[in-house]
Amino acid sequence: MLTGVHVVFLGGDARQLEIIRKMTELDATVTIVGFDQLQNPLQGAYRSDLKNELLEKADALIMPAVGTDDEGAISAIFASSELKLTDEHIAVLPKHCKIYTGMAKPYLRKLSLKHKIDLVELFDRDDVAIYNSIPTAEGALMMAIQNTDITIHGSKSMVLGMGRTGLTMARTLQALGAKVKVGVRREEHFARATEHCFEPFYIKDLSSHVSDIDLLFNTIPTMIVTAQIIANIPNRAVIIDLASSPGGTDFRFADKRGIKALLAPGLPGIVAPKTAGRIMADCLSQLILADTRERGNRV
Amino acid sequence: MLTGVHVVFLGGDARQLEIIRKMTELDATVTIVGFDQLQNPLQGAYRSDLKNELLEKADALIMPAVGTDDEGAISAIFASSELKLTDEHIAVLPKHCKIYTGMAKPYLRKLSLKHKIDLVELFDRDDVAIYNSIPTAEGALMMAIQNTDITIHGSKSMVLGMGRTGLTMARTLQALGAKVKVGVRREEHFARATEHCFEPFYIKDLSSHVSDIDLLFNTIPTMIVTAQIIANIPNRAVIIDLASSPGGTDFRFADKRGIKALLAPGLPGIVAPKTAGRIMADCLSQLILADTRERGNRV
Repeated sequence: MLTGVHVVFLGGDARQLEIIRKMTELDATVTIVGFDQLQNPLQGAYRSDLKNELLEKADALIMPAVGTDDEGAISAIFASSELKLTDEHIAVLPKHCKIYTGMAKPYLRKLSLKHKIDLVELFDRDDVAIYNSIPTAEGALMMAIQNTDITIHGSKSMVLGMGRTGLTMARTLQALGAKVKVGVRREEHFARATEHCFEPFYIKDLSSHVSDIDLLFNTIPTMIVTAQIIANIPNRAVIIDLASSPGGTDFRFADKRGIKALLAPGLPGIVAPKTAGRIMADCLSQLILADTRERGNRV
Repeated sequence: MLTGVHVVFLGGDARQLEIIRKMTELDATVTIVGFDQLQNPLQGAYRSDLKNELLEKADALIMPAVGTDDEGAISAIFASSELKLTDEHIAVLPKHCKIYTGMAKPYLRKLSLKHKIDLVELFDRDDVAIYNSIPTAEGALMMAIQNTDITIHGSKSMVLGMGRTGLTMARTLQALGAKVKVGVRREEHFARATEHCFEPFYIKDLSSHVSDIDLLFNTIPTMIVTAQIIANIPNRAVIIDLASSPGGTDFRFADKRGIKALLAPGLPGIVAPKTAGRIMADCLSQLILADTRERGNRV
């Protein structure tokens, strides 16, 4: 339980509601900032403005999936006015307080570093990335069904990268009956792809593998689906790029060739905000519980 | 090959293009009516108006997925003017000519019967229904992903009916990691559902099984998801009804209770017209080839 632990939420979207629910279930003292336009009241959570007296008493500060923008603005879809995180806000936080977010921009990283406040980026964690790969793969599947005139079943699909998202994507496509080729760099990924009955190949040979594909899912966040690759792809093919923005596809060239190419980052929050919120809630509650125990042991 | 066989197409949508392509590949003499607004010319097919001289020489008449409406109007998305099938058109067809369609309305059935012309309804066939269940399940999946805030993975999903579409739907959901309950009437379906590791139950006990479901897919074309059933469903649940129109759900009551309920017939032509066209093309070419051989043997 988190009895006596003060958790402060600054902004966020539907995902935050799941985290707030979990924290109140665990009996934390929960204060929420930036939720004044929320229709249904959140039982057990106190509403507040963004002020120093609140932050001075925080044991954990929970920011939205994308902490702040480059000027400190906090995305808060349930807020009636803009929220901005300043140097002073971070300065007044107790030194044991940690800041939790999905992924941080340099603005938040710099402030945390300056004031020696621990910043935890959940999306960096392998467990969170693997759990998030499930809604990502389902969202990509939805886009593939919407944007093709064929079924996934029986399609020739290709997945580039066999990391945390790539493996889930390939398994999901195979489960629906697609023929799945997987582009890898490492021998152990080649072996794992073989074990899964995918058709693996090495990325260096990519251009010789794309001539008959219907769907291409990229998960590698560097320019990999280049103009030269796109020139070898059939016209009917659809490219869905799941790598973090700006993706790994030459979108300008794809457009020029009339090939549909879609950049789709941030799918979990879009297609399954509740599941995405639960993933963050489960991880956060474990982290904050562990921190609290550790602090208790030290006292 | 279909050399010397005259196949006439009357109207239709993108699915017809796949069938036309297949027929010309097999060297049939192909005449198309109602395709004058098609941008890309169809190689090897002759364009014509709807006239008696054309129909008098037809060996096979291919109508759209839904043959005609109740007044004889033919759906033809590439036509610049309305097409109407009349008594006279059917009267002038050679007696060996067969009419092929997806499913016929009484209008077309009556005319065929009156003039003793064989009418073949493809969607009645088990093989076509099973092939079509693949795009149907993918379309339903797309709707489920769009209309929920959770992932299919880990969801509590229910499928009513384990016929041609029900089994495919249940397998597809299970492949994505859903927990799948299946409502059946027959013992052999209960056994097959068990073999698939679904959780089967008898439809007569439906009301006691719906209290914790996230998704309900109905494939049974009679009123089965009644007000009484809907009253027991959690508010978050989404109902997707795949049974032929008007479906098997009390949509009025679902709306009143604020439960999302969607009727989704005809998904193959919407989410995968090319695959749906190939399914019809493969079946039609086999049927017309068999007819032609039989006629040849008789001569």
